[in-house]
Amino acid sequence: MGIRVAVAGASGYAGGELLRLIATHPELDLVAATAHTQAGAALAAVHPHLTGLDVTLGATGPDVLADADLVFLALPHGESGALAAALPGGVKVVDLGADHRLRDPDAWMRYYGGEHAGPWTYGLPELPGQRGEISIATRVAAPGCYATAISLALAPLVTAGVVCADDVVVVAASGTSGAGRGAKAHLLGSEVMGDLTPYKVGRHQHVPEIKQATGARSLSFTPVLAPMPRGILATVTALPKSTGDPRQVLAEAYADAPFVHVLPEGAWPHTAATLGSNSCHLQAAVDVDSGRVIVTSAIDNLGKGAAAQAIQCANLMLDFPETAGLPVHGVAP
Amino acid sequence: MGIRVAVAGASGYAGGELLRLIATHPELDLVAATAHTQAGAALAAVHPHLTGLDVTLGATGPDVLADADLVFLALPHGESGALAAALPGGVKVVDLGADHRLRDPDAWMRYYGGEHAGPWTYGLPELPGQRGEISIATRVAAPGCYATAISLALAPLVTAGVVCADDVVVVAASGTSGAGRGAKAHLLGSEVMGDLTPYKVGRHQHVPEIKQATGARSLSFTPVLAPMPRGILATVTALPKSTGDPRQVLAEAYADAPFVHVLPEGAWPHTAATLGSNSCHLQAAVDVDSGRVIVTSAIDNLGKGAAAQAIQCANLMLDFPETAGLPVHGVAP
Amino acid sequence: MGIRVAVAGASGYAGGELLRLIATHPELDLVAATAHTQAGAALAAVHPHLTGLDVTLGATGPDVLADADLVFLALPHGESGALAAALPGGVKVVDLGADHRLRDPDAWMRYYGGEHAGPWTYGLPELPGQRGEISIATRVAAPGCYATAISLALAPLVTAGVVCADDVVVVAASGTSGAGRGAKAHLLGSEVMGDLTPYKVGRHQHVPEIKQATGARSLSFTPVLAPMPRGILATVTALPKSTGDPRQVLAEAYADAPFVHVLPEGAWPHTAATLGSNSCHLQAAVDVDSGRVIVTSAIDNLGKGAAAQAIQCANLMLDFPETAGLPVHGVAP
Amino acid sequence: MGIRVAVAGASGYAGGELLRLIATHPELDLVAATAHTQAGAALAAVHPHLTGLDVTLGATGPDVLADADLVFLALPHGESGALAAALPGGVKVVDLGADHRLRDPDAWMRYYGGEHAGPWTYGLPELPGQRGEISIATRVAAPGCYATAISLALAPLVTAGVVCADDVVVVAASGTSGAGRGAKAHLLGSEVMGDLTPYKVGRHQHVPEIKQATGARSLSFTPVLAPMPRGILATVTALPKSTGDPRQVLAEAYADAPFVHVLPEGAWPHTAATLGSNSCHLQAAVDVDSGRVIVTSAIDNLGKGAAAQAIQCANLMLDFPETAGLPVHGVAP
Repeated sequence: MGIRVAVAGASGYAGGELLRLIATHPELDLVAATAHTQAGAALAAVHPHLTGLDVTLGATGPDVLADADLVFLALPHGESGALAAALPGGVKVVDLGADHRLRDPDAWMRYYGGEHAGPWTYGLPELPGQRGEISIATRVAAPGCYATAISLALAPLVTAGVVCADDVVVVAASGTSGAGRGAKAHLLGSEVMGDLTPYKVGRHQHVPEIKQATGARSLSFTPVLAPMPRGILATVTALPKSTGDPRQVLAEAYADAPFVHVLPEGAWPHTAATLGSNSCHLQAAVDVDSGRVIVTSAIDNLGKGAAAQAIQCANLMLDFPETAGLPVHGVAP
Repeated sequence: MGIRVAVAGASGYAGGELLRLIATHPELDLVAATAHTQAGAALAAVHPHLTGLDVTLGATGPDVLADADLVFLALPHGESGALAAALPGGVKVVDLGADHRLRDPDAWMRYYGGEHAGPWTYGLPELPGQRGEISIATRVAAPGCYATAISLALAPLVTAGVVCADDVVVVAASGTSGAGRGAKAHLLGSEVMGDLTPYKVGRHQHVPEIKQATGARSLSFTPVLAPMPRGILATVTALPKSTGDPRQVLAEAYADAPFVHVLPEGAWPHTAATLGSNSCHLQAAVDVDSGRVIVTSAIDNLGKGAAAQAIQCANLMLDFPETAGLPVHGVAP
Repeated sequence: MGIRVAVAGASGYAGGELLRLIATHPELDLVAATAHTQAGAALAAVHPHLTGLDVTLGATGPDVLADADLVFLALPHGESGALAAALPGGVKVVDLGADHRLRDPDAWMRYYGGEHAGPWTYGLPELPGQRGEISIATRVAAPGCYATAISLALAPLVTAGVVCADDVVVVAASGTSGAGRGAKAHLLGSEVMGDLTPYKVGRHQHVPEIKQATGARSLSFTPVLAPMPRGILATVTALPKSTGDPRQVLAEAYADAPFVHVLPEGAWPHTAATLGSNSCHLQAAVDVDSGRVIVTSAIDNLGKGAAAQAIQCANLMLDFPETAGLPVHGVAP
Repeated sequence: MGIRVAVAGASGYAGGELLRLIATHPELDLVAATAHTQAGAALAAVHPHLTGLDVTLGATGPDVLADADLVFLALPHGESGALAAALPGGVKVVDLGADHRLRDPDAWMRYYGGEHAGPWTYGLPELPGQRGEISIATRVAAPGCYATAISLALAPLVTAGVVCADDVVVVAASGTSGAGRGAKAHLLGSEVMGDLTPYKVGRHQHVPEIKQATGARSLSFTPVLAPMPRGILATVTALPKSTGDPRQVLAEAYADAPFVHVLPEGAWPHTAATLGSNSCHLQAAVDVDSGRVIVTSAIDNLGKGAAAQAIQCANLMLDFPETAGLPVHGVAP
């Protein structure tokens, strides 16, 4: 018998990815998967790729979830705070939503609005000291997808003093699953295939989270919607502050991280290489003309950017090997 | 210590998928991965999604492969015959190429040409009696990708006498990885994205293999290149011969097959639901206007259509559980 | 001053394509573009690719449309019958919907349901004699997208007695714009990219239209949704009836058709080659194994399959050159 | 009789787009289309979307081209210099290659190498005063695709003193046709679909061209390869220098430019909206957190980024309306 886990928000894309990974996890047993409008449906009718899993979706609520040892919350932003509060203290929780990520209530108000649920342990294990924090936590806030890709690229460079924390400029493009599964006309295949378009320019809600995670003081962030289902490619640039080699700093920072790979010199990240995995691929260079340090980072937004990272946190919280049940290699081509 | 396996043709797409699956297989240890022009290269330089596997590609030849307990040959058609002949009899071999699939030398001559290497045990475990044959074989010819998708849809219906073996009509579309990794202008992303085009119309080399595997006596097969990296969707139609329910016949035929799923009534296969897996999704209906039986079949051409099926065969040959190390669920969306 | 035209249903994909083509048509002046929920919106807000056209969408109704010399109706099936009936007899109408395509009320009832609006002149100019019929018509029913692709491939062969009208088998794949612009979850980019899936298997509503247009007596038609915004590739197979060369028959049938191109021997149609155009590309062959005649046909479902063909009909109705304002060449790559 | 034009490099993507546009241009007559390895081929065999154009490709050389009034050179970088020098002075030339864009021989040496052919009139008509320069020129160097997208976004802001010319940071993603039609493995559809990857990070050859065209003094430019055939989305950020409204400055700069559209407030560019056109869509905002000015720019890399812009220049050189034969509206969806 493994650890009993439940997934709330199982009908969404992050929920589906959690269920896919839990199904082959050596230590986790699914005891409940819940949804709102899809409650009562057979799982495979909602997620055809999970055909073969004999699960019926329950209705999201504290009762059905309280039976689990650990609950994953994959709910729209603003919905996990109240639900988590209604769960017994003995139930461990990993929240994939934004509700418990920010320490600063003002930042929450400015970027999300409504009542701030208050911060939990931040679930990015590769940040300095964070692996240990997560290991002893009972409530963990898994990072946002953009925040993961960008923070892994930037944080060690700020910490090492290799780049200036002011005037960080980021452009990051995401596959469409990052926008969720709601039926919106601008996300139709007819609209997104063959198209690149920016959105929430200069006002994306991950800005305060990235600043909190990396120590950046000024951040210009432009998100772009890209014509692919999954994947984030973040291009992070910052002014140099010392003569340290940014690639070397990253390589040392992640020497023991099983999922963060600084690529060999000359090789640049491909989002496709991380599809379905919990890996992050990084490369850095110094721009010839401007002298800026450029780091690019590739992840699967539903993998390291959501579900797989949540399971990585759960592995730590449950004292399992950090890599248990998590793919390192992407599905390519 | 697991079973020692080697992969010849490791730089291609099927080779890469074999390595991805072997890396997490509980019973298999990779002892050699070989290539031709890429010999000497680091694996991750050739397959960026396999970053983290510390493997250097060797040169394909009997010497380096003979050290393994089991060898996977993922070579261009016509190249595995001679190589396999040079391996010691005690080395088990699964050939992903066409060389040993056909029993009829005339069919080989007409569709492939050159010397016929002679037939091996055909590696489609879900055909009647074939699971047992594979279990006792030392040399297995894994089926072609189209042949797999089409045979799984058709064979039980011919066997049960539900459809007529004459006048079978198939149109099947494949993702571009089915055409291999050779640098050809008509396979450039600029050419294939947004495009559907037929090819080898009425003369595809899988025709005799499909007829051999299914008992079809007359087969019209039109392959189509589709704008996606992976996946085959086969639409198989045949004239009805009895009043049996084709969906029910398929469901019974595959009741014990862990990787072949006849979908619930009203649900139709999606190739995306099988991405990265060894699964085949099937559905059948009778055409209102023509009375024809229509079966559609979805697989991953590199999964059930190549590498994963080869490992399924190896599992049987090595007396491991048939499902060892093989994903049932696709990576979606 | 050109001919005054109006477009009802301007917010949809076919409506947008009509407006794009009318904007550069040498003889047509747009006097009204109407919509339902989008009435009042700026055109470019609804169709960003039409930025630069200073048009505000009106509300669909007979009053605003009656002012035009010719009205294009690009409405959901079942909505054009009543609206057309309310327009003055002197207003010419091209209906892109299905309401007036079928001559057989029973077929309408079986495949669409509701009251049958009654047949108009069928707007496929390349059918024998049809160019003349359209030229003298005031009300024309433009064909469905699949019906166009399939009928152009099949009709001359049935007429010439080269193929048997029984047991015609068609599999045709369409880009997602054929499914319209309604916000449906299964049409999200995340769902359709990388995916092929059949739908309405054996019961698509274009079956009776195709039989009416081609003389086919038995038709098995399987539609497939393909991961691209536009394009239809139809694979049409039929049993041979005479020894005539199907390619030659097609070439002769379309010798004078400016938009239907029988490709040189050995070249097969690409949907991408027809993008944005009114062209249809055809090729035929005889299947080696089965002896079946196979014709494949590529069109742009919004071009020859909808808006461009509607303008081709309008050109004939208005005594303009058939090719006025219509692209022959696709936008590729 | 129109003006006699020739296209050298007709087998490539830019060459094909030139031929597509020339075919419907009201004033231009094609007298020669030439290629290297494809010389002697039927045009439609090389460009299936140009089926219907009865053209045979000639061999690229001064003799066949000298017969034209105006020659478009769509050759690999470094090949147009010698060829242009061999053409009679009376033959007007528009070069789509890089050979004659840069005024600074040192920049040429650093980024391209080899002998510098020397500068021609720079063919970006929307730069201040440039429309007039092009009108009187006989030799025009059409801009690079990235340079076009970025310069249109940035130049007016530098000129107006709204942004600082130091520390300009650009990330721009391009469809795969920008990488040309050469058969390279990393450009296969299997590799690029579903993938985003940066390349030539911090050392792209368009950097000196962009600085020359915009007045930027320091430029960090990261190009990204995106999974679509066409389109460039450039995100250009710069530090603010005055309190001027960047969107207003752009709107005024392009008030009379028929192909550059500053979108309504709140609307952001889509590359798909420019497909096949000569348009550029722009939008600007100020980043809330950093105060940086962000401008995004969308073009079709083969349209405004190459062939269509070359024809725009030719129109000016030949005293035709600037818009003759050039689409304003993209083909979407």
